[in-house]
Amino acid sequence: MSAAETIGEMARAARGAVAGLAGAGTAAKRAAIRAAAGAIRVRAEDLLAASAVDVAAARAGGTSESLIDRLMLDTARIEGIASGLETVAGLDDPVGEVIKAWEQPNGLRFERVRVALGVIGIIYESRPGVTADAAALCLMAGNACLMRGGSEAARSNRVLLDCVAAGLAAAGLPAAAVQMVPAGDRALVGAMLAAHGLIDVIIPRGGKGLVARVQAEAKVPVLAHLDGINHVYVDASADLATAAAVVVNSKLRRTGVCGAMETVLIDRAASADLARGVVAALLDGGCAVHGDAGVMELDTRVTAAADADWDTEWLDAVASAALVDGVAGAIAHIGRHGSAHTDAIVAGDAAVAARFLGEVDSAIVLWNASTQFADGAEFGFGAEIGIATGRLHARGPVALEGLTTYKTRVYGAGQVRA
Amino acid sequence: MSAAETIGEMARAARGAVAGLAGAGTAAKRAAIRAAAGAIRVRAEDLLAASAVDVAAARAGGTSESLIDRLMLDTARIEGIASGLETVAGLDDPVGEVIKAWEQPNGLRFERVRVALGVIGIIYESRPGVTADAAALCLMAGNACLMRGGSEAARSNRVLLDCVAAGLAAAGLPAAAVQMVPAGDRALVGAMLAAHGLIDVIIPRGGKGLVARVQAEAKVPVLAHLDGINHVYVDASADLATAAAVVVNSKLRRTGVCGAMETVLIDRAASADLARGVVAALLDGGCAVHGDAGVMELDTRVTAAADADWDTEWLDAVASAALVDGVAGAIAHIGRHGSAHTDAIVAGDAAVAARFLGEVDSAIVLWNASTQFADGAEFGFGAEIGIATGRLHARGPVALEGLTTYKTRVYGAGQVRA
Repeated sequence: MSAAETIGEMARAARGAVAGLAGAGTAAKRAAIRAAAGAIRVRAEDLLAASAVDVAAARAGGTSESLIDRLMLDTARIEGIASGLETVAGLDDPVGEVIKAWEQPNGLRFERVRVALGVIGIIYESRPGVTADAAALCLMAGNACLMRGGSEAARSNRVLLDCVAAGLAAAGLPAAAVQMVPAGDRALVGAMLAAHGLIDVIIPRGGKGLVARVQAEAKVPVLAHLDGINHVYVDASADLATAAAVVVNSKLRRTGVCGAMETVLIDRAASADLARGVVAALLDGGCAVHGDAGVMELDTRVTAAADADWDTEWLDAVASAALVDGVAGAIAHIGRHGSAHTDAIVAGDAAVAARFLGEVDSAIVLWNASTQFADGAEFGFGAEIGIATGRLHARGPVALEGLTTYKTRVYGAGQVRA
Repeated sequence: MSAAETIGEMARAARGAVAGLAGAGTAAKRAAIRAAAGAIRVRAEDLLAASAVDVAAARAGGTSESLIDRLMLDTARIEGIASGLETVAGLDDPVGEVIKAWEQPNGLRFERVRVALGVIGIIYESRPGVTADAAALCLMAGNACLMRGGSEAARSNRVLLDCVAAGLAAAGLPAAAVQMVPAGDRALVGAMLAAHGLIDVIIPRGGKGLVARVQAEAKVPVLAHLDGINHVYVDASADLATAAAVVVNSKLRRTGVCGAMETVLIDRAASADLARGVVAALLDGGCAVHGDAGVMELDTRVTAAADADWDTEWLDAVASAALVDGVAGAIAHIGRHGSAHTDAIVAGDAAVAARFLGEVDSAIVLWNASTQFADGAEFGFGAEIGIATGRLHARGPVALEGLTTYKTRVYGAGQVRA
């Protein structure tokens, strides 16, 4: 069977499972996810053993320790995966929600109602936990999914998928609702990306290389973000304590997350105290600062920024820093160098903040708050499957609602069209 | 310049125009669209002349009369285009609408606000009116668009685009908000379809060949429908008068529209009067009926359906007809043969209707109403740019709201993440 035939067969079975999930309802979905969590706890020893084999093979193959860390499961992480599933099972079911209802003068009543998105392809690497958490989110929104993990985590993923399968079986839900695409055969990834009409959306979870490949090759729509080149703009109207706290937290709370700040922009009209204070706070916090000429004058520890720095996602304790001509300058800089992910302003002047929030065309824009709030849980969504910076369907943190679509129900009394 | 470079340059200019439109606001967009309508009226003679040349060239090239009819502009059609623009200018501006607002326990306030989708590619053929109406809808939702019409309508399209450009200029809006991609060079269409990240969505308007090519080749997301294989299911609980009226109107009001019924499904448990009455109503209305064995027994005028008929979009006074085992049989038939566009049930039994509306997974599902209501204006949207049967972003009639996306504004007081 060709890769396309294999994926086609799995996707058709998944499509059938979507109908089964719609019929089964909320309680069955919750029961399946909770039973999967239980199975993960029961099989913790198996998971540790599988992970040990994955890790040993990766180490033997010369994998870097940072990748090994993502791959590795320990008791705490296994419990984290199980309790994460219980969180998902406790979320409100989005399916069936009437988003909007209206009536036309001819008496026709319309209801826009939320339904499952359909068949979702998850392409991921390293972290085996994705096998459980992405599958649970898809399932809770009524979707079937094809999970394609990396071969480096194949043994851990297999055990986790068995636990999800056990959950589905316990709740009487179709096994085809969560299927594993065999790791190793790269052609299967290509077939998933080409499966227009069979797979409704692809969600990549992993490093930039994976996301870039998926975005470049996919014929199926993709929900993802490639870069998080996020900015904090400090307006002259900002107070120093707020600005320093927001900038330092945005950059340094965790430098490796996609919501981390990469560039700080400082109003050229800011007081010397404010401008120096913000830069010093970053440097004192252990962050290297690559500045333009104006920023270099503020602190001797600042080194010269290269042109490429404005387009660099450091994901490290390094920040680019520039002086800009007020909010207009900040908006222009972000327009040129941003990645439409998350950008923040620190300002006391509400009109300036409103202009920034209005004109910066990013998925998330914040006023006087850290960019590190770019996260579904912090938005109150309970959990997220990822952050999307595309412009269609879902933008920003993608949670259960982003994993649904809608249809329109029309109620008549025999109306015909003139 | 290569086709990709040409499209890249146009799309980047369009992206700049989107920011200009956001800044200009509702009144300017309305003024531009009204001024374009005015220009179309003023230049009616030029339009008639351009159309005459297009039509003569098409006729000389052996184009069919039905295509010539789509291509041709006359005084009434020109007035229709102008007044259509005025309708669009009168619609509520979707941009800026706060879709949802909420707060988190840490005091962060969230607003999901509607913004322009961005840069839209319209690929169309024959009907020159699309040049004005699609551009106006894109513009009213704050978008810039690249319009690529067919070479058969190039002269008419050019004059209409000049009118739109005059409208933009009169309202002080950027000329790059509506640009025409030169007709004739097929490579430019390929470049539009490949312009991932430059063009946000492609909307094809035209025949099935055009839509199929766009869907097959596009790397950019597409909003469209390929087929409208729509069903009306007549349940045993239906009353004959309603069933006959809905079925006949669904099929015969206009046979060439995508919302027309193509197949009627009749409950095997329906009374002989009901089943015969529905089939006779279609036949008496001038519709050929291709039936399965059961339907053939109902009326001697019914001819035998071929297997392919269940998957055929007739777009003509022809209907496929089958007996099915109740609502479950209808749902199964539609699942196998439908195109997820529009399907209706005629039933007196509300529980049966609810099951149909719940389980038939089409963009539009109706109870006791004609499938020909599948239209943005009939939904109360004022106008539509098309009907989408995909599952992402917008489903069913796509109007102004479907031409927007959203961002999240977050209001803080210095919050940082723990």
